[in-house]
Amino acid sequence: MKIVFLFYDGMTALDAVGPHEILCRLPGAVVQRAAIRPGPIHSESAGLVLTAEYALSDVSHADVLVVPGAGSATTLRNHPEILAWTRLIHETTTWTTSVCTGSLILGAAGILKGLRATTHWAVHDRLSVWDAKPVQERIVEDGKVITAAGVSAGIDMALMLAAKIAGPLVAQSLQLGIEYDPQPPFDVGSRAKAPLKMVEAVQARMAAFFESR
Amino acid sequence: MKIVFLFYDGMTALDAVGPHEILCRLPGAVVQRAAIRPGPIHSESAGLVLTAEYALSDVSHADVLVVPGAGSATTLRNHPEILAWTRLIHETTTWTTSVCTGSLILGAAGILKGLRATTHWAVHDRLSVWDAKPVQERIVEDGKVITAAGVSAGIDMALMLAAKIAGPLVAQSLQLGIEYDPQPPFDVGSRAKAPLKMVEAVQARMAAFFESR
Repeated sequence: MKIVFLFYDGMTALDAVGPHEILCRLPGAVVQRAAIRPGPIHSESAGLVLTAEYALSDVSHADVLVVPGAGSATTLRNHPEILAWTRLIHETTTWTTSVCTGSLILGAAGILKGLRATTHWAVHDRLSVWDAKPVQERIVEDGKVITAAGVSAGIDMALMLAAKIAGPLVAQSLQLGIEYDPQPPFDVGSRAKAPLKMVEAVQARMAAFFESR
Repeated sequence: MKIVFLFYDGMTALDAVGPHEILCRLPGAVVQRAAIRPGPIHSESAGLVLTAEYALSDVSHADVLVVPGAGSATTLRNHPEILAWTRLIHETTTWTTSVCTGSLILGAAGILKGLRATTHWAVHDRLSVWDAKPVQERIVEDGKVITAAGVSAGIDMALMLAAKIAGPLVAQSLQLGIEYDPQPPFDVGSRAKAPLKMVEAVQARMAAFFESR
């Protein structure tokens, strides 16, 4: 089972590494990390550098595609090679998935037309630009496309996907293996739960940054 | 505020990237990733390669030190340079932290003597080798040393630490920013919650691997 992660400069590291930590431990998993050019990938996470071993042109098929997000609209939209490749790989997948604003890459690639989808709460309205049906849920499944909400939602998505692929017992063992028994110190992790003032402040900052570059 | 992540070959990627995604967004944070030799770091997570920009010898001080874990006892114990450096940095920190079996590096460095601490549940008994007092909690704070349980616990730890450093409002905004409103698909993420048979199977596999290399 070939699990391919799209990597690109400006991506959010945890969007990819959360699902990666789970999916790479599925029985029989072969993981490939692919980018426009193989080599160092500069994430938006304080410049944390990851590595892609494969060029997009080296990869023509995936059983599972994972598309991480970024904090910048330009990063997401302005790489025609990425959009063309994502479309191509999507035609070969059993599951096409995204985390956070990775769904806006799926959208720009034309994959979300008419589909229910989610993305980071702060830019949720951008989904309709690509004719997706925005759904305010943490994980949204429509056919073979699974989109997850912001950053940390990729962990929940990957465990759900692991259960679909390998069954609940394997997924549960993986969850126990990464000791995923979350105890967030606050109960403010979603738009619905956080105080309105905080939602507005974080959204204003993130949305302004998102459109500015 | 200087936040230093120890990187090393064989580390678990999510142990570091979870806290990194949060702590790097603290106001005024300067993040450094340091390893025995700067350059590519091969994690144990399907060979995902991260990059350390600094040699240990380049870094002589940290306000916050984050030590990720690994799945192998040898990886954790057998690098005297790492242990010596960890001891040295610990003397300069405001907070010394670990995720997963990273606490066994702190232990081997002599930092946990007499302190309450935690680690990954499957090798929890190894803490007493280093004269720590093993505590079955997700996050354990003793003085300036904060140890987190397995892999994903680093996210909770980092949010708690963010609140100590920058106050609860900043930490809450960071939590909302990464949309950390966890919805694990199963309720089996800890030794206490998982079925005994699963606990035994996962522990046998992880502990055997842990000792074998």
